[in-house]
Amino acid sequence: MEATVAITEAKQKKGKPDPETLQFGKTFTDHMFTMEYEEGKGWIKPEIIPYAPVEIDPAAMVLHYSQSVFEGLKAYRSPDGEAVLFRPDENFKRLNRSNRRLSIPPVNEELLMEYLLQLLELEKDWIPDAEGTSLYIRPFIIATEPSLQVAPAKAYKLFIILSPVGSYYPEGIHPVSIMVEDHFTRAARGGTGTAKTGGNYSAGYNAQAKASGEGHAQVLWLDGVEKKYVEEVGSMNVFFKINGEVVTPELNDSILQGVTRKSVIELLQYWKVPVSERRISMEEVLTAYENGELEEAFGSGTAAVISPIGELTWKGTPMIINGRKTGEITKSLYQTLTGIQTGQEKDPFGWTRTIS
Amino acid sequence: MEATVAITEAKQKKGKPDPETLQFGKTFTDHMFTMEYEEGKGWIKPEIIPYAPVEIDPAAMVLHYSQSVFEGLKAYRSPDGEAVLFRPDENFKRLNRSNRRLSIPPVNEELLMEYLLQLLELEKDWIPDAEGTSLYIRPFIIATEPSLQVAPAKAYKLFIILSPVGSYYPEGIHPVSIMVEDHFTRAARGGTGTAKTGGNYSAGYNAQAKASGEGHAQVLWLDGVEKKYVEEVGSMNVFFKINGEVVTPELNDSILQGVTRKSVIELLQYWKVPVSERRISMEEVLTAYENGELEEAFGSGTAAVISPIGELTWKGTPMIINGRKTGEITKSLYQTLTGIQTGQEKDPFGWTRTIS
Ligand SMILES: Cc1ncc(COP(=O)(O)O)c(C=O)c1O
Ligand SMILES: Cc1ncc(COP(=O)(O)O)c(C=O)c1O
Repeated sequence: MEATVAITEAKQKKGKPDPETLQFGKTFTDHMFTMEYEEGKGWIKPEIIPYAPVEIDPAAMVLHYSQSVFEGLKAYRSPDGEAVLFRPDENFKRLNRSNRRLSIPPVNEELLMEYLLQLLELEKDWIPDAEGTSLYIRPFIIATEPSLQVAPAKAYKLFIILSPVGSYYPEGIHPVSIMVEDHFTRAARGGTGTAKTGGNYSAGYNAQAKASGEGHAQVLWLDGVEKKYVEEVGSMNVFFKINGEVVTPELNDSILQGVTRKSVIELLQYWKVPVSERRISMEEVLTAYENGELEEAFGSGTAAVISPIGELTWKGTPMIINGRKTGEITKSLYQTLTGIQTGQEKDPFGWTRTIS
Repeated sequence: MEATVAITEAKQKKGKPDPETLQFGKTFTDHMFTMEYEEGKGWIKPEIIPYAPVEIDPAAMVLHYSQSVFEGLKAYRSPDGEAVLFRPDENFKRLNRSNRRLSIPPVNEELLMEYLLQLLELEKDWIPDAEGTSLYIRPFIIATEPSLQVAPAKAYKLFIILSPVGSYYPEGIHPVSIMVEDHFTRAARGGTGTAKTGGNYSAGYNAQAKASGEGHAQVLWLDGVEKKYVEEVGSMNVFFKINGEVVTPELNDSILQGVTRKSVIELLQYWKVPVSERRISMEEVLTAYENGELEEAFGSGTAAVISPIGELTWKGTPMIINGRKTGEITKSLYQTLTGIQTGQEKDPFGWTRTIS
């Protein structure tokens, strides 16, 4: 991979959007980063160019066999106006893990970080500064070789696109209702669940529609084998506080290894709050609920950071958690994580990377 | 959907390729069919235009969440020069089943057939006539709305592209070696296995690479839950002849409902050969093998039509089937099916559709 990025500036700059009316993932900045992979040459042509539609062959393999991976992270505006990234190295590591699962050639993580920094340098005015807002960063790789053979492509394109996003909680953090999904499977043992690859997401649309139709915000996924064990919630990892201990499903080969999940665990350990990663069944969650020991529940992910769960419905029976109020640990995690991410709180872990 | 297709003819026509050197899915004809879906308007703008790269927004949802479906069928050249399609209605029905699983709006199957016929009318000279050759037809739908929200798109594009293909068996039909995959999963219960959607295919690349590395042509997939029951072989359905009876895994919610599979079953019933659709475990296959009752095995699919299996390796133990020779039933099925498909044999089932 070459270190020098060719930059073509956009002739016309777009106006910055009003953060109050921003919908997630619909507005993009003036520029994007692109790079190509050619067999025998590796990753070549790193470029920053105006954000615009690109040409793709109708036979490009990504359109047929979904050979693609992506990442999602955010840049926040610190109180003194700097751009702050949260554990971006973790995202690039995960990108390469996803690449391996999807038979996509690995990228040089350090160089990719350099490219991202150059792109952010150019687009830094796009990082909004209102409370709760950020610039969402979406690196992704697609198979571009025009071929209908069911086999890994010989050509790929990597993009980094940027999208300013409004607050996830414009009216303040509040608990949501979740439905446990008994029929549909997000990812199975031996499948692609640990990879951030498109197929895992569109596979969940039916279940999400069912949950929404019944008044729930998201779906809780169970394991694909026995439909007994808790896996994730929508596009978040999930935690339960049971009788003083915070429990989250252990990593296996179907759960996505969330960067927020990892940070929650490390923060709880730092706070000396008991936390364990282990298999947890819905039966155990229900029993804890019935015994009055299910004290808090929340999801963790880049989009919402922490999302308290106020109601969890399994087989038609709703469990109301903490009287539908945000729990203490949930609130502390949200405040501390968002504080560190936005540079408003001190970062004892070295998680943030500031771009001045 | 509108019945009138706007046709823009290619200014320059490509030369027809030599069928001897054709690689599958690398050469495309002069024109393609496209149609768009817009929320509130439905499927609009049916068009036949020159085959060429198209513009796509980098945020097009298909590139992020793989919301896409496809189909695959073939047009053959009959001895008197007509184009013959094999059960195309089955493909369009399956397209809509895939659409439902992927939350993509359904298409009007009759109209889509009309569009395909118009495209074939224009491209009929592209159907090769050498033995074993055909014109591969690839309808597919992709989510085009530019949005990073994890939700069904509000805009789609449907394409039909055409690719002349050489003979699958340039040296005559011959048995292949297959490896049973114990670790990776293609599709799980509650997953997307019955849909022809990209994610199922790239998910299998790792397993295919492992099998190829060990000298096998393809992978035999087991069920995603217990890893005990036979599902499919590569991109084919699978049949075993055990002690005079032909057995194929029954349809469940992870196996693709092959058009060739259905035709094999109907043909065997017509011939009064015992055939059953039921769950079949690898244990049962191995026991049959050890008892000398595993008489034949083959895969079925549009690409190869029938692919005899000469060796099946499970947990390191190879089973040699019928002395690595193509079995009698396997051969008859291949000859009759290809005979009907190419219009060389009489079609007592009304399976073929001739375009004059
Ligand atoms: C399926 C899934 N689980 C969990 C997460 C949470 O991961 P992270 O904390 O890295 O955002 C995500 C993505 O963000 C996800 O897509
Ligand atoms: C996974 C899979 N199984 C089986 C088949 C066979 O289906 P058909 O006979 O309709 O070609 C295909 C596709 O062709 C497939 O992709």
